[in-house]
Parts: sequence; C-alpha cells; structure tokens
Amino acid sequence: MLTLSSDFGSVYPAAMKGVIARLSEARLVDVAHDLPRQDVRASAFWLREALPCFPPAVHLAVVDPGVGTDRAALFVRAGDHALVGPDNGVLLPAARALAGDGTVEVFEIPYGEDVHVPPAANDYPGVWPHEPASSTFHGRDVFAPAAALAHEAGVAVAPEDLSLPRVEDYEGIAFPEPTIEADGAVGEALAVDGFGNVVTNVPGDVLAERFGSHVKVNGIWAAARPTYAAVEEGHRVVTVGSHGNVELAVNQGRGDETFGVDAGGRVRLSW
Amino acid sequence: MLTLSSDFGSVYPAAMKGVIARLSEARLVDVAHDLPRQDVRASAFWLREALPCFPPAVHLAVVDPGVGTDRAALFVRAGDHALVGPDNGVLLPAARALAGDGTVEVFEIPYGEDVHVPPAANDYPGVWPHEPASSTFHGRDVFAPAAALAHEAGVAVAPEDLSLPRVEDYEGIAFPEPTIEADGAVGEALAVDGFGNVVTNVPGDVLAERFGSHVKVNGIWAAARPTYAAVEEGHRVVTVGSHGNVELAVNQGRGDETFGVDAGGRVRLSW
Amino acid sequence: MLTLSSDFGSVYPAAMKGVIARLSEARLVDVAHDLPRQDVRASAFWLREALPCFPPAVHLAVVDPGVGTDRAALFVRAGDHALVGPDNGVLLPAARALAGDGTVEVFEIPYGEDVHVPPAANDYPGVWPHEPASSTFHGRDVFAPAAALAHEAGVAVAPEDLSLPRVEDYEGIAFPEPTIEADGAVGEALAVDGFGNVVTNVPGDVLAERFGSHVKVNGIWAAARPTYAAVEEGHRVVTVGSHGNVELAVNQGRGDETFGVDAGGRVRLSW
Repeated sequence: MLTLSSDFGSVYPAAMKGVIARLSEARLVDVAHDLPRQDVRASAFWLREALPCFPPAVHLAVVDPGVGTDRAALFVRAGDHALVGPDNGVLLPAARALAGDGTVEVFEIPYGEDVHVPPAANDYPGVWPHEPASSTFHGRDVFAPAAALAHEAGVAVAPEDLSLPRVEDYEGIAFPEPTIEADGAVGEALAVDGFGNVVTNVPGDVLAERFGSHVKVNGIWAAARPTYAAVEEGHRVVTVGSHGNVELAVNQGRGDETFGVDAGGRVRLSW
Repeated sequence: MLTLSSDFGSVYPAAMKGVIARLSEARLVDVAHDLPRQDVRASAFWLREALPCFPPAVHLAVVDPGVGTDRAALFVRAGDHALVGPDNGVLLPAARALAGDGTVEVFEIPYGEDVHVPPAANDYPGVWPHEPASSTFHGRDVFAPAAALAHEAGVAVAPEDLSLPRVEDYEGIAFPEPTIEADGAVGEALAVDGFGNVVTNVPGDVLAERFGSHVKVNGIWAAARPTYAAVEEGHRVVTVGSHGNVELAVNQGRGDETFGVDAGGRVRLSW
Repeated sequence: MLTLSSDFGSVYPAAMKGVIARLSEARLVDVAHDLPRQDVRASAFWLREALPCFPPAVHLAVVDPGVGTDRAALFVRAGDHALVGPDNGVLLPAARALAGDGTVEVFEIPYGEDVHVPPAANDYPGVWPHEPASSTFHGRDVFAPAAALAHEAGVAVAPEDLSLPRVEDYEGIAFPEPTIEADGAVGEALAVDGFGNVVTNVPGDVLAERFGSHVKVNGIWAAARPTYAAVEEGHRVVTVGSHGNVELAVNQGRGDETFGVDAGGRVRLSW
C-alpha cells in the first residue's frame, strides 16, 4: 500500500499517481491533496493524525514550499512504515507516531542533474519522461519515483538495501507546548478542520473533567461537553476532538469564526 | 467493494480508509466526501442517486450531526447491498433504491464504552488504536470498522451472522411531494449541484412534453429544453436532469444564482 | 487501468465509477474531477500534462458543455493508450502526447435512443439502469460504459474489434502560439493552477537563459529564477514550470492575483 498526501490541489497529484503506477503495482490510497497549502506545521499535524490509522505502508507526503532549493529529499523508516518527502519537518511527527517508540531512521534520496531518482531506478530504463528533474515539481520527478521504488523494495525495506546515505541532521517540527494551570490552560490552535472546528494543542483530559459545566475561551463562555450535538444548534461548545485535544466548535456552525481563532492563534481556556 | 461517502471534507476520510485497510482487503471507492455538510436530507438525495450505479457493495455513508449522542449506528441490508451509517435517515432513500422492491432490513451496530465495534472485531485483536471510541469521530471509530467487518463477512451477509439486533423503529427521510396541476407544478429544490443546477422534486415527465416551449419558474420565463446547450450560453433553461427530475439551469452559468433558488427553496413551475 | 477526469465536482463522478465497476474489473484512478469547469481548452491542457505520466490505460475524460446535443462521442487510440470522451477537442492534445509520434486514430461511439452504449454492451444484459440515455449526463450513460467496455476489450484494443466507425472530421484544440522576439516574448496564459501559478504558452528555454536577472511581465518587474523559493516569501518570480513553460508566480503567494492575469490573459515578457 502506498498513500499519497500533498497540498497540490488538483491535477498535479495525478502526475504522481501515474509515475508510481509506471514503477509499481502498489495499491494507491489518497490521504488528502488539500493539506493546508504551504503550511508545513499544520500539514504535519494532519499527517500525524491520519497516517497511524493505516496498516504498514509507504507514505508519500509532499508539502514543499522549498521545492527546487537545496533542501534534501528524505526516506524515513518508522516501524513497519516508510515515509518519503521533503526535509522540512513535515514527515517527522507522523513518523514518530508510526514508529510506536518514536525511533525513526532518516535517509537521503539523492537527486540532481545526474541523479534525479534513486539509483535503483536505473533498473527501469526508459520509464520516466522527465529527464532531468524539473526544479518546480519534485513530487512528480523525485518523490513519486522514490516512493514507488521503496514500495517495490518492500514497505519495511532496510534503507541500506536502497544504498541511501543516512542523515543525522534533518528538520523537525515542534508543536508548541500548552501551559496547564490550576484555573485553565494556555495553548495554541494547531489547525482548523473543514467543519470550522479549531483543534488546539491542549490535551483533552484537562477539559474532560469539566464536561457539564461552562468554560471561558479567550474570555467567551462556552459549554464544555463530550460532543458537538450536546448543545443546541448554533451554540458554542468546547469538546475533545478525535485527536484527543481540546477543540473549539459550534454545533452545526463554525468554531473558527465564532471564537475568532485561526491556525496559529492563541487559545486561553479558563474556569 | 466498499464505497465511502461523507461530509468530512479532507483528511478525516483518510482515517476511515486506514482503519478499513487494517481490517479488510476490500476495494475502496470514494463516492464523495463533500456531501452537503450536516445536511442529512440533501446528502440522502445524492446517495440515492449515486449508490444504485454500483455493483453489490458495502456502502459506508457518514453525515452525522448527532455524532456522540445516543443515536444508533445502523447496518442496513438492501438487496445485494449493505449500508453502514448513523440512524438519522441518511441511508434509507439509497437503501430503498438499492433494494429494488424497497424492502430493507435494519440492524443496530452496538458500540459504547465497552463495545465500540461490532463483536466480531474481537477476532482482530490489537488492530484498532482508538479504545474506547471517541465521542466526536464515529466515522473512524465505529462505522469504518463495522463496514470493514461487514465486507469481510460478505457483502450480502445475513445480519444474523453478525449477531446484530434488528431495529424496527429507525429514522426515515421523507422527500417532499410536489403538487402537479393542470397549469404547472409546485415543488421544492432538493439539492444544488456543483454546476449550480437546481435539482427539484418535480418529475421530469411533466416538463418533457413542453420541450420546445417556454415555462415560468417562480415567475421568470425560461426555455424548456432537453439539455443545457439547447439554449445560448448564459441563457436560462429548464430541463430534465440525470435523476429524472426537473432541473433549473443556465447554459454554462449557474441556475441557483439566476433563479434565486437554493436547496430547500420553493419552485413553482407554470405554463 | 482506467483513469477518470471531469469537471463534475462531486457525486457525479461516483456514478461513472459505479457504472464502470459493473462492467469491468479495471483498476480506477481519479485524475481530477475539478478540471476548469466547462473550459474545454484549459481542461485539455491539464489532461495533456497529466495523462502522459501514466502507463498504458483507458482514459475517460468528460468536460462536455455540449452534452445532449448532436456532438459525437469519441474513442481515440493513441499509442498504447485509449481515450474516451466528447468530440469537442478536449481529448486531442493529450492523445497526441500519448501517441508519441502524434498519430491518433479517432472513432465514433454510437449512442442514441436505440443504441446508447456500444454494441458490445449487449453482452452485459440488465446491467445498466438508465435506458435510454439521459440527455444531461453522458458521463454516466455513454462515456463510462464505453470506457469500461474498451478496457475489457484491452487497453490498446483495435477499434475495429469494437466495430466503431472511423471519424476523419473531429474537433481539435489549438493552443495559441507565442511570439518570440529578441527582447522578449508575447504569449497567453493557458491555465492557472491551485497555487495561483499562471501557466503560459511561452517555452521555458527562452527564460532559462535569463535566470538570475529580472524580466518584465506586462510591464511589472519580476525575478527570473529556477524555482519559487529562489526569491523571498511574497516576492514575484517568473520561472519554468513542470510542464516546461514559463510560469508567473509569487513565492508562497498567488501569481494570478499579483500579476493580474487569468487563464486566457495576454502575457508580454520583455527584457
């Protein structure tokens, strides 16, 4: 199985699928191609939520504002999973979650004017039309062939077998840590989902014990409840989302608009 | 085959796919994940249009504003098809269409603190990370595993084999009935598609005999024609859509804006 | 393998997938269902970019503002690939790219009141509920069954085996030719991608030799660079996109808005 994630929107993901289908019989599963555009941290959050639901797979994930610069292309081994994408941190939170014990191994996929796909691709002469790689679409020209070849080598391939150099110094993503206090918590919005629910970095357990009462969010009262429809339609509700974190919502409405909080915004809970 | 439908937008559907792939080798086909958000009736309409095109399959369909409340989770057997989703009526119109004779059998999928996936899931120890189920994402925690297990048991599984309790009292969806008169018809917009075409509940045959002439829609004249491009670009046209109902459209434009009718709006046709 | 492309947005593509799954075991791959709506030329451009990435396949592509009129339904053989869609030119640029030498063979798929799917469909009695074909959804009623049957007959099927009449007089798409001058070039925007990058028809090689300097776009200065992130965030950049053409962009911003150019707009480069 090979999953695909990107912030490409439309058409470009198809180019990646086509390239992969030339090189591999892998079953393809789209995770999302509308990850928050050019937003590496929010995309990393969503990947960390979605990818651990899958059985062992190669996960291709491209949110890559630095395409064509000298940032490396990475192959990350995480437990029975492998991830392929740019060295900007987007892969790491998901990789640590997939690894179980948090231990990941990171390798570099060489590419460039002469070597734009992994060496093993030479076993597939003539399959790839883009020679050399473009500077503007490494999803198609670098990451997709690398993911396909990794899949063919085996999902949990030993990277040594791919002759990839190990990387010790790679980009990470640090999600901000919330501050938990006796009378509340101060955190940050990590992402907003399509329903307008604001996903914070505050762990749900600090809220769960207040279910049934009201709490303040940036000074605005809202009901603390175990789910959205525990309040009337259109009412504010603070709940625990499926990721385990505190979420700001409006039953059948948009929490982001009502609470005035976007991704990256400050969230002060008090009670 | 296992089809997936939801109003989740992005990323969340991937969690369902991952869960299913852990439990089943089912071929996955996305129907749509942008069903009209939180709109059970309009979503039910689209499911009724799309699902009968498929060969026998398990259809997972989650439009679920009541997630986490005490609404039941349902397994519906309809002819050679099965449907899994919340007990809010969203499954029923499609189920009746799939059943051919309209006869459906409805069963409850137990879940809760102790039993959050169907009993048979115990045959798959360790596969599922969310224990207990969240209150906010039953698509991932309840419906997806249930659909996967139903698929493994056989698309047209006898629900008795799943040891599911039969439900006699479940939610339905009643699409409004139009009034057909000698000089027109009064109906309602069931949905608006992505082109801006307004799908009404008025059966197409009352219009088809007027093709070539003009009719009034809420007092606005429009050409009655067998297809959109039978009028000039930008002109109003009333036609019969692919679902067999009267549709309000503008050739290469948006019928909803031009006629001022949204889903749920009243549509008076007169001639 | 059978790829699907359309401008249908949501739900309608699922009807095509269901129909195909009834008639064929083909592996289905979505290319895009948000091709530029009703815009045959821009859609043809994207298909020409995406489809050549795939291994041999049947490509179903429906952007069809003339649905239900007397425009023909086409089966196009291009090298090891086949394409199915309306006779409005949308298939041809991709077909010529897939054919390698540009040679394509074009055949007509008969349909109508009596013959709405290819003759071979009679081998599948009872599989298709829409009889006769609608006038408003040939994707479901004509093209999807034709693509499925073509796939079953073999991707590189000899159309003679399908008993399809050959067509010599079919619609083409002519992308406009740019004018290359000593001090610049005058071209046109073929499409805008989801990032807001404006894809022009000016070949990239005229720009590549100016990388490192600045050029004027419709009188506005911008850096000519090999990729987006070669300029600061928010700055204008003119680069060579993955299709090999000059592209107008803003690093992590929208080139279409900043340069004020939409699909079809004039682009004058000068240096």
